[in-house]
Amino acid sequence: MVGVGLIGTGFMGKCHAIAWNAVGAVFPDVAKPRLVHLGEINDELAKRKAGEFGFAKGSGDWRAVVNDPEVDIVSLTTPNQFHPEMAIAILQAGKHLWCEKPMAPSFAEAQAMAAAAKKSGKVAALGYNYIQNPAIRHIGALLDEKIIGDVNLLRIEMDEDFMADPEALFFWKHEAASGYGALDDFAVHPLSLVSVLFGRVARVMCDMTKPYADRLVASGGRRAVETYDIASVLMHLENGVAGTLLVNRSAWGRKGRIAIQIFGSKGSILYDQERMNEFQLYLTSDRPTEQGYRTILVAPHHKPYDAFLPAPGHGLGFNDLKMIECRELLTRLAGKPARIIDFDDGLEIERTVHAMARSFEEKRWVDVR
Amino acid sequence: MVGVGLIGTGFMGKCHAIAWNAVGAVFPDVAKPRLVHLGEINDELAKRKAGEFGFAKGSGDWRAVVNDPEVDIVSLTTPNQFHPEMAIAILQAGKHLWCEKPMAPSFAEAQAMAAAAKKSGKVAALGYNYIQNPAIRHIGALLDEKIIGDVNLLRIEMDEDFMADPEALFFWKHEAASGYGALDDFAVHPLSLVSVLFGRVARVMCDMTKPYADRLVASGGRRAVETYDIASVLMHLENGVAGTLLVNRSAWGRKGRIAIQIFGSKGSILYDQERMNEFQLYLTSDRPTEQGYRTILVAPHHKPYDAFLPAPGHGLGFNDLKMIECRELLTRLAGKPARIIDFDDGLEIERTVHAMARSFEEKRWVDVR
Amino acid sequence: MVGVGLIGTGFMGKCHAIAWNAVGAVFPDVAKPRLVHLGEINDELAKRKAGEFGFAKGSGDWRAVVNDPEVDIVSLTTPNQFHPEMAIAILQAGKHLWCEKPMAPSFAEAQAMAAAAKKSGKVAALGYNYIQNPAIRHIGALLDEKIIGDVNLLRIEMDEDFMADPEALFFWKHEAASGYGALDDFAVHPLSLVSVLFGRVARVMCDMTKPYADRLVASGGRRAVETYDIASVLMHLENGVAGTLLVNRSAWGRKGRIAIQIFGSKGSILYDQERMNEFQLYLTSDRPTEQGYRTILVAPHHKPYDAFLPAPGHGLGFNDLKMIECRELLTRLAGKPARIIDFDDGLEIERTVHAMARSFEEKRWVDVR
Amino acid sequence: MVGVGLIGTGFMGKCHAIAWNAVGAVFPDVAKPRLVHLGEINDELAKRKAGEFGFAKGSGDWRAVVNDPEVDIVSLTTPNQFHPEMAIAILQAGKHLWCEKPMAPSFAEAQAMAAAAKKSGKVAALGYNYIQNPAIRHIGALLDEKIIGDVNLLRIEMDEDFMADPEALFFWKHEAASGYGALDDFAVHPLSLVSVLFGRVARVMCDMTKPYADRLVASGGRRAVETYDIASVLMHLENGVAGTLLVNRSAWGRKGRIAIQIFGSKGSILYDQERMNEFQLYLTSDRPTEQGYRTILVAPHHKPYDAFLPAPGHGLGFNDLKMIECRELLTRLAGKPARIIDFDDGLEIERTVHAMARSFEEKRWVDVR
Repeated sequence: MVGVGLIGTGFMGKCHAIAWNAVGAVFPDVAKPRLVHLGEINDELAKRKAGEFGFAKGSGDWRAVVNDPEVDIVSLTTPNQFHPEMAIAILQAGKHLWCEKPMAPSFAEAQAMAAAAKKSGKVAALGYNYIQNPAIRHIGALLDEKIIGDVNLLRIEMDEDFMADPEALFFWKHEAASGYGALDDFAVHPLSLVSVLFGRVARVMCDMTKPYADRLVASGGRRAVETYDIASVLMHLENGVAGTLLVNRSAWGRKGRIAIQIFGSKGSILYDQERMNEFQLYLTSDRPTEQGYRTILVAPHHKPYDAFLPAPGHGLGFNDLKMIECRELLTRLAGKPARIIDFDDGLEIERTVHAMARSFEEKRWVDVR
Repeated sequence: MVGVGLIGTGFMGKCHAIAWNAVGAVFPDVAKPRLVHLGEINDELAKRKAGEFGFAKGSGDWRAVVNDPEVDIVSLTTPNQFHPEMAIAILQAGKHLWCEKPMAPSFAEAQAMAAAAKKSGKVAALGYNYIQNPAIRHIGALLDEKIIGDVNLLRIEMDEDFMADPEALFFWKHEAASGYGALDDFAVHPLSLVSVLFGRVARVMCDMTKPYADRLVASGGRRAVETYDIASVLMHLENGVAGTLLVNRSAWGRKGRIAIQIFGSKGSILYDQERMNEFQLYLTSDRPTEQGYRTILVAPHHKPYDAFLPAPGHGLGFNDLKMIECRELLTRLAGKPARIIDFDDGLEIERTVHAMARSFEEKRWVDVR
Repeated sequence: MVGVGLIGTGFMGKCHAIAWNAVGAVFPDVAKPRLVHLGEINDELAKRKAGEFGFAKGSGDWRAVVNDPEVDIVSLTTPNQFHPEMAIAILQAGKHLWCEKPMAPSFAEAQAMAAAAKKSGKVAALGYNYIQNPAIRHIGALLDEKIIGDVNLLRIEMDEDFMADPEALFFWKHEAASGYGALDDFAVHPLSLVSVLFGRVARVMCDMTKPYADRLVASGGRRAVETYDIASVLMHLENGVAGTLLVNRSAWGRKGRIAIQIFGSKGSILYDQERMNEFQLYLTSDRPTEQGYRTILVAPHHKPYDAFLPAPGHGLGFNDLKMIECRELLTRLAGKPARIIDFDDGLEIERTVHAMARSFEEKRWVDVR
Repeated sequence: MVGVGLIGTGFMGKCHAIAWNAVGAVFPDVAKPRLVHLGEINDELAKRKAGEFGFAKGSGDWRAVVNDPEVDIVSLTTPNQFHPEMAIAILQAGKHLWCEKPMAPSFAEAQAMAAAAKKSGKVAALGYNYIQNPAIRHIGALLDEKIIGDVNLLRIEMDEDFMADPEALFFWKHEAASGYGALDDFAVHPLSLVSVLFGRVARVMCDMTKPYADRLVASGGRRAVETYDIASVLMHLENGVAGTLLVNRSAWGRKGRIAIQIFGSKGSILYDQERMNEFQLYLTSDRPTEQGYRTILVAPHHKPYDAFLPAPGHGLGFNDLKMIECRELLTRLAGKPARIIDFDDGLEIERTVHAMARSFEEKRWVDVR
């Protein structure tokens, strides 16, 4: 039985905890893991959360989790800025690592993390759960099958509105120290989908804008916003496909939109994460008078939906995607092929994001590599 | 810690198991239960499933689960026909009961089960999980608030296509012994929603039809189908609202549709289970030139979505509804108010279904009580 | 050239006028008609409207239109109550007739009109324009082709909200003298679609309700509403198909909904008049993993869309349906087969509506014939 | 009465003809025009079409139309390449001009046409009918009212699939002489909407790609495609709003999509031309628990829908937009303010398209002016 540690109990920490608790019940093909040690900022919180999340122990010192000999793998779900130190420590301690995205505030740190992973020989996976959706997996299979022929255009958008309120106070995500803005918050997700569906991005041309130039400061007065909530990118993939990637974290009305449009020589495919249990397919092989986008509800034949439900169209949720990710990770730990974004793949995503930022600064097309 | 037993490991059995495993991680307000004993048709299967589902023990004799002193509550997810005997045994053994719907093949058996529950003084809940959807709960709150004024019409449909294939062989669901057909398979679900949103049904006028008069028998030849895949019902609720309930288990293209239309004096509400993370609201209080159905994505302010996710629009799945049901049950076990369909409510639903069947046979309006 | 008269210049009068003006430009296969004589309630209005609508003459006496020797066909778009007298006069004068629906306030009057039409030997058509939609025509062709196999269930709804405001004053449509309510206002439209797609209705079981028991009277006080805004009908068609017809003219949020669901042994078809330029088709002949409802946009290959536009998906409007109806009528006048609801077909629709009303009164299934 | 000439009877020629025939019946506020003279490539076709379209005369020489003293305004709907010569001749003959878009193959020619219009003092309007949609007009009014606050992002896409078939033969639209490709075919339409909703574009950064490098030639062999079916543009408007404009005339599945997303500080607006009778509005002023995109069906209070139909949600079609355009033109001819894209506005659109092309060639941001 795999012994599990968890550091961080926020949004993603809870999400990992749910996955660790139920993955065995959902997937008979993986051994039920043992929930060993949970780390939080102090002992009291750590013990309370350990109780809630079903971990045997809780510690206020994250290093106690890392050094626990019963722990084989650590879920790292602390804020981004803590990733480099903790991730490297975990890997150096000889533990496998399941790290939330994005990897690190800077590209240099991400590189250091990838180097540590390589050196450790351990599995180091990133939490890009959107790639796990049975709908996305099936879209990938359809592309491989060339059901829509040769792809010639990809459009991908990611929009939410959690920073859309102009009256909300200035906070750390408005500081340049937090990164570029929507580019690291959002662009990495669509790029993880691009990665599994199409491969690498060759070159990019990026524009970024700020919907609100300044914001109220809690202590009074206003302060200039330093990050960009909106980014719009022209791009060329290494496989020759052209496309656009548009992201906006101040998009009033959008809650979890990741909208994909893929056009090919024999059809097209549409997807929107806000309706994650369906996708749309247009095929020129249908009789002309009845050609139209099919709205296809995810069903047991779209693996691994069947592990959750034997009935079609009954629906998975966001947390179920994390459950699939957890199963892939356990599969990889068992030495078998699995669908995960590892640190090498993750580094490539970071590299692309940083090329986008450079393109914006230099107002020109930039090659990713 | 509540000790849990589980009898049956099919669709619903697995669904219960997932809920029992993760409910504590999702809901900090309930104590993490202890998974004690799983029952299946033989020891081997029982032990294997106990391993997968995280139960300490597995037995080929369901009575071993019922009589296990460490078991406080039993999940009963065996086929319908076994419910009466098992449910009554569980209650008589002084255990709480979480029983999947429908209650029993006959109304008399359902009555016996309800009587046993009453006598036992234990909690006896039915698995009507659709009522747990935060969208449905919020619709209920909006109705209570009279945001759409006084309701005057309710239309509700439930359709799937799992029996739609005319080439599929005759099987037990085509026999009269299995019940009426769509009426018990499906009508009970919409009625559970009617129950929590509006209350009781007063009278019904039902029509039933068979899409396929006969079917191939595995051994050769054809056999007349005895059950009705389609039922269409006119109804009057006790609160004076009129409406229709239409169900079809041979509805090609429908996978998990439960479509609700509620019309009131100041607006209307729409819902479809196939897109269970959203609902639609039309309000006459909006400025006339901008009146339209709002598509509202479920969000943390629609409780208890927040227990799963802090971000709006990221989506729950079918199994999450069962998780909420499990939490409600644990809450009731702790002596607090909870949202469950207990055996008394369930009996009312069965009573309504049987009145529908009688109405069809007698070709007239029938009072439910 | 066909000489045209028009009596009545309200909603439908204008709609007819637009059709008469442009039908020639749209359809090269019909001769451009000559707009001769328009009748209204007084000379002044008649002359003004004649100018606007492009008619050569205008008269305050409708009989002047009827008796004008240059008039070959009369569009009759006055309120329902005037239909019997005017329609019979028109037919007796040896003119063809294009009469708006519903035919007449009472079934006896409708019968008299049908008899007059028969005796005259003239073309007498009713304005059931929804049957003219290329989407509906193509659905008909698909049904004839049995692309969804044998149909076993039809559900049809028609809903608008023009009477939904409970604060609106009592007016003539609330009086029993105006008819039953939604049954004559709305049910006739879906029945026209049933007529062209499936044929006759054999028997019906109808329920009717009033969303608002009484209403304010302009002069003060309240008055009991005598008509039913809501009707819900179980029905069996002569071809053996079962179904439901649900109508509501107080359905807040609905503006022009005519929603059709047709289920067959090999697929299903959906349509909604509020999105009249598309329909949905589900086929079991699609590969299982990609089965889903196709949203098919109307295109030139769906005749006679091509007469309006050579490009697919650009959209027709409500008035274009009237234009097609006008062309069908001119085609019939030229002695060729055409798609119109004539007085015989219309009488059948009226007969069905009256059977529904009788069913409600007698609380039992009623045979239409 | 305005005397009308028409040159060209293809897609747009017929569309103009329908408008000229029915505009008077639809809009009582304009005088019914007189259809005088139609020009086509030979006398026979001209006379036949004049008959169909209701014009008094038909000539095989377009100059006969231009010089007809009874003609006050000429609809020019010939292919793009003939616009400069004909348009200038029409204006020099002292006639008003209603010219289909795009203005001309080259920017220099478009400039010459605009100069001729200015010199003539006549009305010269372009056929950008999408701006006439009541939905678009109402969106404009909502933006003016700042109902969604200050706009900060505009995304606009236009996609169709009429060139998507890779097996279709090489034809003139694949030659560089026909223009850039999607940029002139499509981009001008969204730009007309940008023009009326937001004003001018300040700078652009454009990428263009070819889905199919070469195509079969009718006479055998393959020929390199010289135009770009796909263009993706980053842009900044003069009012400070950032955005993207994405067009694709080889987008399988899209038939008439013009999808607009407008994000502001207090809400957002969505529109899609394929469902031209509705738009979506999200407002932060709605109660948080019921915030969602409203799907608003076009209705009589969205002017001038009421001129076509007194009932909401019954739907306009593409040709109705042309009818509105015709009315606006007649209004302008009567010396009153009207909503048209005149040659000055049109020149600005052409200027923007040419800046896009230059940006692509030079791989850099280009200022429009």
